Amino acid sequence: MTVSPFDHPLLSALVGDEEAARHFSVEADIGAMISFERALAEAEAECGVIPREAGAAIVKALASFRPDTAELRGGVAKDGVVVPELVRQIKATVGGQFGEFVHFGATSQDVIDTSLVLRLRQAIDHTGLLLSENIVRLANLEQECGSRALMGMTRMQPAIPITVADRIVSWRAPLERHQQRLTEQSGRLLVVQFGGAAGTLDKLGDKAPAVRAALAAKLGLSDAPQWHCQRDALAEFASWLSLVTGSLGKFGQDIALMAQAGTDIRLYGGGGSSAMPHKQNPVKAEALVALARFNALQLSGMHQALVHEQERSGAAWTLEWLILPQMVVATAAALRLAAELAGQIESLGH
Amino acid sequence: MTVSPFDHPLLSALVGDEEAARHFSVEADIGAMISFERALAEAEAECGVIPREAGAAIVKALASFRPDTAELRGGVAKDGVVVPELVRQIKATVGGQFGEFVHFGATSQDVIDTSLVLRLRQAIDHTGLLLSENIVRLANLEQECGSRALMGMTRMQPAIPITVADRIVSWRAPLERHQQRLTEQSGRLLVVQFGGAAGTLDKLGDKAPAVRAALAAKLGLSDAPQWHCQRDALAEFASWLSLVTGSLGKFGQDIALMAQAGTDIRLYGGGGSSAMPHKQNPVKAEALVALARFNALQLSGMHQALVHEQERSGAAWTLEWLILPQMVVATAAALRLAAELAGQIESLGH
Amino acid sequence: MTVSPFDHPLLSALVGDEEAARHFSVEADIGAMISFERALAEAEAECGVIPREAGAAIVKALASFRPDTAELRGGVAKDGVVVPELVRQIKATVGGQFGEFVHFGATSQDVIDTSLVLRLRQAIDHTGLLLSENIVRLANLEQECGSRALMGMTRMQPAIPITVADRIVSWRAPLERHQQRLTEQSGRLLVVQFGGAAGTLDKLGDKAPAVRAALAAKLGLSDAPQWHCQRDALAEFASWLSLVTGSLGKFGQDIALMAQAGTDIRLYGGGGSSAMPHKQNPVKAEALVALARFNALQLSGMHQALVHEQERSGAAWTLEWLILPQMVVATAAALRLAAELAGQIESLGH
Amino acid sequence: MTVSPFDHPLLSALVGDEEAARHFSVEADIGAMISFERALAEAEAECGVIPREAGAAIVKALASFRPDTAELRGGVAKDGVVVPELVRQIKATVGGQFGEFVHFGATSQDVIDTSLVLRLRQAIDHTGLLLSENIVRLANLEQECGSRALMGMTRMQPAIPITVADRIVSWRAPLERHQQRLTEQSGRLLVVQFGGAAGTLDKLGDKAPAVRAALAAKLGLSDAPQWHCQRDALAEFASWLSLVTGSLGKFGQDIALMAQAGTDIRLYGGGGSSAMPHKQNPVKAEALVALARFNALQLSGMHQALVHEQERSGAAWTLEWLILPQMVVATAAALRLAAELAGQIESLGH
Repeated sequence: MTVSPFDHPLLSALVGDEEAARHFSVEADIGAMISFERALAEAEAECGVIPREAGAAIVKALASFRPDTAELRGGVAKDGVVVPELVRQIKATVGGQFGEFVHFGATSQDVIDTSLVLRLRQAIDHTGLLLSENIVRLANLEQECGSRALMGMTRMQPAIPITVADRIVSWRAPLERHQQRLTEQSGRLLVVQFGGAAGTLDKLGDKAPAVRAALAAKLGLSDAPQWHCQRDALAEFASWLSLVTGSLGKFGQDIALMAQAGTDIRLYGGGGSSAMPHKQNPVKAEALVALARFNALQLSGMHQALVHEQERSGAAWTLEWLILPQMVVATAAALRLAAELAGQIESLGH
Repeated sequence: MTVSPFDHPLLSALVGDEEAARHFSVEADIGAMISFERALAEAEAECGVIPREAGAAIVKALASFRPDTAELRGGVAKDGVVVPELVRQIKATVGGQFGEFVHFGATSQDVIDTSLVLRLRQAIDHTGLLLSENIVRLANLEQECGSRALMGMTRMQPAIPITVADRIVSWRAPLERHQQRLTEQSGRLLVVQFGGAAGTLDKLGDKAPAVRAALAAKLGLSDAPQWHCQRDALAEFASWLSLVTGSLGKFGQDIALMAQAGTDIRLYGGGGSSAMPHKQNPVKAEALVALARFNALQLSGMHQALVHEQERSGAAWTLEWLILPQMVVATAAALRLAAELAGQIESLGH
Repeated sequence: MTVSPFDHPLLSALVGDEEAARHFSVEADIGAMISFERALAEAEAECGVIPREAGAAIVKALASFRPDTAELRGGVAKDGVVVPELVRQIKATVGGQFGEFVHFGATSQDVIDTSLVLRLRQAIDHTGLLLSENIVRLANLEQECGSRALMGMTRMQPAIPITVADRIVSWRAPLERHQQRLTEQSGRLLVVQFGGAAGTLDKLGDKAPAVRAALAAKLGLSDAPQWHCQRDALAEFASWLSLVTGSLGKFGQDIALMAQAGTDIRLYGGGGSSAMPHKQNPVKAEALVALARFNALQLSGMHQALVHEQERSGAAWTLEWLILPQMVVATAAALRLAAELAGQIESLGH
Repeated sequence: MTVSPFDHPLLSALVGDEEAARHFSVEADIGAMISFERALAEAEAECGVIPREAGAAIVKALASFRPDTAELRGGVAKDGVVVPELVRQIKATVGGQFGEFVHFGATSQDVIDTSLVLRLRQAIDHTGLLLSENIVRLANLEQECGSRALMGMTRMQPAIPITVADRIVSWRAPLERHQQRLTEQSGRLLVVQFGGAAGTLDKLGDKAPAVRAALAAKLGLSDAPQWHCQRDALAEFASWLSLVTGSLGKFGQDIALMAQAGTDIRLYGGGGSSAMPHKQNPVKAEALVALARFNALQLSGMHQALVHEQERSGAAWTLEWLILPQMVVATAAALRLAAELAGQIESLGH
């Protein structure tokens, strides 16, 4: 199945990003879930919630655990989430007297949300690097061509002459603000989710705060009370993703318009046509516009999902799964394409 | 890569639909493109646009043609579309004096859009069947439980007693209207796209209408002038998809609310929880709501893509690719889930 | 208050449409509600549900009824709908022994939804006329300039020469299909809503079908069972509105791009700049793009509102109010602007 | 005209907010534009760009200036923006030798965008106060009922008992984070826009930075280079507005679900029904859900508008006007309703 171009063996060459996509593979997801269960077992053993031997047995079993994927798939169909079946398999692997201590006091959402955050942390590192690269490339372009002349265009009409630097700044400055925004919001996003059945960590008694703190520390995440039905940090991050692709969409649109006008830009490596060998289509520039509009759409869904009823909404939560991974990959792809496009610009202005 | 849950080995068990997804696989897409090139060669040979021998050679070569997928991927990255590289490979396979007659007078968009329409035709057949099945299941449910009592709920408050049939009608009647809508619009959608480089079929001279008619007939599509930058039939179809999932979302929401209230419905086979063995989560009902909201979002993008500049917009076109296949699969999945959910209802009302 | 540009004393000159907006004024809404209550009283008197004298008294009282708007406003704040307070005022006006027969067997949603449909009927007439005018203007333009040459532009690059007619067809043909679509769907939309408290017309007994049929006939609407929680016809109409503005957005975008290129089009009456007296901004063309994108957004909300829980959802219903009137006005405004813009084109092509 | 419920004499009682709406009235907009022109004249006089007497004459004329609104409306229809006509009127009012110094070196977008920012500053103050009030009310509610019991509900099913405080925290904690977010982003938003015809302040020569700094200081805004085609701060603010309404939508949804269940909450002052006198509809709770979904939609449009081509996009800019004011008012209305709703809660839990 290759419904989404982000997963498509051919189309992902244009609109995908392998490194970002990897964080949403089954392997990465299950891997992060296993990290959660291991860290939980260790934290609970250290805090005396489960026997030390149970903790050790779980850690040992997880080291070689390989899930039965077909059974996991069946579990999702039935339960709507993979965790009950995954935990069943892990318990069976641990076996004996310690199996019951697997996933102790946790619930599906703890595992899934924390796994997501762990992978978003990696995706953030990746997009952060790509963002910096774009800023550098645009700065270089400014250094090379910034003093050349360009006709300023307002409302699709020639206005007055500007410099190439004037236009490049309008591409670069927002990216620099996006770096600042990411720093501000990362602290709210990279937080462990651990609340148990309905958020109260009811099975851990007065050891709950200590276990949660230890769990967070082992996973390299911040510690804070559960946020399972407070999705604002995710919606905020989605906004950030769409801000990035929106700014790159403006860059793409400007490049496509310059390419149309013909003399303002020299691009090499444009796309070919099956009917017209003379053409050099500004393919990457167009893709940037498409990705910007795509993320702008999806953003609406991440905000619809803020209406997350009661202690856990299956509907709102599932909606996030349908959207957020694609937004992350769209953003990484746009950053990759924009950097490539900046590299294809031979000259700007006159 | 498994960025989208529709492609995800695990999550597609909940929100995917294998049969619908198959129509968007690389194999199905390339297969439909090859059907286009074969039908075009036949039509052009019959109309005397290309030599009969060329037509025969192309048909023969296509019968055993297997594309080099890695090269296709490279083509997409460079050209933004797969067709230039695909045509290059087909020409090389045909070889000799006839290679030049492959794809004669056509352009990438002809191939891609017609391939899409061919596969949408199959997807329509599939969703049409699922839609009928849902109508039957709801009619059966009405027959079984329709005369029982239910408290009518308006604005989230008990209103006055109604019958179970009253509520079931509100689920079924829209589905019947959706059948009528699909019939009305299919004639506008299932139309060949054939226009050549910029829509004028410039290379075919006065034989253009005859070739297009023959091409359409061979593919089982309607014949009409090119519509490559008129995307209204696709946006209309997307609206239909979202109408279907929206109606099913109402069904899902109602079931979830009944399940919450507890006594109005008996469902078997609900989802399990990793923390609370006593729970029977209305997983499919929640997924219906999520899919309805998802399609409602995407619909906006298919309408944004109506702003398709000039003779061909790479940006607007690429945006469609990011959206429409997922909408189709979401719709098929929702229909599948709704039929299953209707089957899980043991009783409704009192 | 002038939050929306559609209501704004200045901005509505650009993006508004007076005639369409008039149908959403308080006066028009209350007027249509009074028509409903009058037709209901007549129908119920004729069918023997209420005394003939009561029917006559209600009709007489309504002829001179003037609502107390301040009290209506207070009613909306409290009840979320205007009808309970409006009915209270009408009852007080009728007074005496017949007051109790006002609004007999009906509920708020019957009044509000039927009032909406009555006004949509007028808005449809208006947009239908504007649509025809656009088709005529484009046909005229084709006759004047259709045979002239234009460079076909694909993917923002010069492709091959086409004629002006080739491009005009891509603006006109979708509008003709929109006419057909409107005809198809009007039958589903222009239907009376009459269901009583929870849709069962419980107070009317076996006379319910006759009353509903008479009510529909008096209002000039089709008769069908209540559809108060089946919002598909409204969502379908919203899709139609967005199809229209989307097609006009393509027209606007093409004109703006031609105006930028400079030599393909001669437009008179462009917008002036406060800083650059030499400019002729393609203001109406840009507004068409903005309105297309606006409606594409809102459409998503009308489809979100399909998830209309149980017998009546205050949340989903209120959402429609926030969206649909603006979509109608945006569409009428776009049609008006497009016709004006077509009239400003002095020449196209070479 | 009353197309939008936010402007509607009746419906604004439910979904509107008078104080917020006032900032988007014509009077407020023109008033802020006049402040801009006055501050500009003062700044330019101080910096020696225009004669001191000219500055004084402009300030004096503006003190009693009353625009001709009908002419302004005509200007918008023609120019797409109000400023050219407004400036013409101001120049005529100043008259004589100094008229030409009005608006010197500025362009329409400088005036419109700075006017917007000035009014957003006031709207931020207003929403900030309402946000604080909500936090206080929820904290009070927690103090009153926090220790009572509630059945935790996950995936629409009873899970395990929690306390009322557990649920209230999920309403309040996001609001506190929204306060922090607003602080972070206000510095990026409340910035003067001043760039002249195409952003280069070409007419001011080396005095440009000094004039811009003085202008910003007089208006109480931050000083930074022009951002007329970098709309990220506006899109970020729109995201914030939607985060706020999304969090309140969750609160509303939870209250509506509790009201449905019947025993978890005692609310007074619910809405009445025209058909069922016994009902107490949770009208404000439902409106919160509608406003959340509305803003989530609109947000998508503010991000679409990031694709702002070249030095000024009439299309993208106009789209913002259609969206942002409504988002601000929707947010203020939601905050007002939520505070009222919190005040209507007599008890929560058991």
